[in-house]
Amino acid sequence: MEAATERVPDLAAALTLGAARVEAALETLLATPEGPEAPLLAAMRYATLGGGKRLRAFLVLESAALFAVNETCAARVAAAVEMLHAYSLVHDDLPAMDNDDLRRGHPSTHRAFDEATAILAGDALQTRAFEVLAEPDTHSDAQARAELVAALAQAAGARGMVGGQMIDMASEGQTLTAAEVMRLQTLKTGRLIQFSAEAGAILGRAPATQRQALAWYGHDLGAAFQIADDLLDALGTTEETGKTAGKDEAAGKATLVAILGPERARAQALMLAEQAAAHLEPFGARAELLRQLAAFVIERRS
Amino acid sequence: MEAATERVPDLAAALTLGAARVEAALETLLATPEGPEAPLLAAMRYATLGGGKRLRAFLVLESAALFAVNETCAARVAAAVEMLHAYSLVHDDLPAMDNDDLRRGHPSTHRAFDEATAILAGDALQTRAFEVLAEPDTHSDAQARAELVAALAQAAGARGMVGGQMIDMASEGQTLTAAEVMRLQTLKTGRLIQFSAEAGAILGRAPATQRQALAWYGHDLGAAFQIADDLLDALGTTEETGKTAGKDEAAGKATLVAILGPERARAQALMLAEQAAAHLEPFGARAELLRQLAAFVIERRS
Repeated sequence: MEAATERVPDLAAALTLGAARVEAALETLLATPEGPEAPLLAAMRYATLGGGKRLRAFLVLESAALFAVNETCAARVAAAVEMLHAYSLVHDDLPAMDNDDLRRGHPSTHRAFDEATAILAGDALQTRAFEVLAEPDTHSDAQARAELVAALAQAAGARGMVGGQMIDMASEGQTLTAAEVMRLQTLKTGRLIQFSAEAGAILGRAPATQRQALAWYGHDLGAAFQIADDLLDALGTTEETGKTAGKDEAAGKATLVAILGPERARAQALMLAEQAAAHLEPFGARAELLRQLAAFVIERRS
Repeated sequence: MEAATERVPDLAAALTLGAARVEAALETLLATPEGPEAPLLAAMRYATLGGGKRLRAFLVLESAALFAVNETCAARVAAAVEMLHAYSLVHDDLPAMDNDDLRRGHPSTHRAFDEATAILAGDALQTRAFEVLAEPDTHSDAQARAELVAALAQAAGARGMVGGQMIDMASEGQTLTAAEVMRLQTLKTGRLIQFSAEAGAILGRAPATQRQALAWYGHDLGAAFQIADDLLDALGTTEETGKTAGKDEAAGKATLVAILGPERARAQALMLAEQAAAHLEPFGARAELLRQLAAFVIERRS
């Protein structure tokens, strides 16, 4: 495994490198065919390529590196997670959902194309994510591929991401407790981040205890990340974040920031980030970048 | 395998039995949890349970029976295909797509619930379909599970069902040739029917030639089925079919019936059904029900 020798100790550089790797994998996996499917692929590529922090991809790549997983295989899984994430953003932005015209500083997919195309592009991105995981190129052992599919589906489905989005929409304008908000966000964004951190252990056929440690890391990291995101939404500007600022409050969405206030929310995020890092103890120095990432997600400005 | 002794030689009875089996599997696989995800599950169940011909499920069950596949495993795959099919109908019916208020004689999902719920229920049904295929209960051999996921994804994705729907929407009001219509429909409905017929061979770890024979059978059956469906749309009533009659013509959709006229379209369907049955030759008398099905799909009245 080459990563051990070429590993960059600097998190910012590693994030950039990871983003470039997943971008290259996505380019290949979403290659445009000739023929009448081309417009659909164009929308899928628009929604997925060229942007985003690639946090989920980085978690896949770095957790896979802990187990010396082949980098091409890990990049395919990272790309699948980013496709799944992109599909959820495309559908969440639709007029019937969050009705958001802006994503990563650009028109959201249904604005750049049209609603029907955005619905179908999201659908096909989800399909492609599972297809990529199931293909032999992702792992020589079919057991690992089937496990990746099942674990991603659990994270993404009715008892995960989509269930969280459903609860989020149903809760608009309602008063939630801090515990209810935490649960909602664990489903809506946390489970996919958790899967991303676990994915390396699945690829590496790691012992259950190590997979569990990464799952807990991902769980706490995801919760910290979400609070940081809500702080940015509440306190940032549209220009800084590339998203419509203040949209949570405008939509009457419950966030920990609204319930606890910015200072206590920030303290909570810090606690979660420290807790996340503590779960990495079994991996020692090899997990240094994942450890740094936990600090980074609560400090970021966009 | 019990099916050999209890096999019903009558197609109508076998279809009813197959529908009951997949319904029971769907009931289990879409069990409603307590808690805030319940409304989403309710919409998923509404879209999937209690109706439809279950043609795709029947193809899975019958092709699996050719290889003496465990019936519980086959029913899980049949249920997964029906979930995938149901998700496609929910999204196709949306206002931004075909804007159809009626499905199987009942309000379509976005009318019975709301648009956001319908989008999310469709999303989660797709996820659940892949989850079910990947779970160990579906097959003891992970290789078969991974193959099922990859094959269903190919049939359902941008180069299959969703790609076909995209072309269908882009073609509205345009003049297509008969060949272009056939290609569109092969993608939009044919590929999933083809997968359903192939699924038994994947479950049964059948030789490639037998899997290919079933794939061709499914391909021709799907094409015949689609023409029969278009004939019903053009000539049937809303009351008979439980769908809005004449909607293809109203939407300016190209069908073989519109291009060739009803008589030549019917002759084409008959030819395809005979061709489909011919592909079953290697399976002899064991494929009798699948053979009968080919005749049935072009004779049905709803």
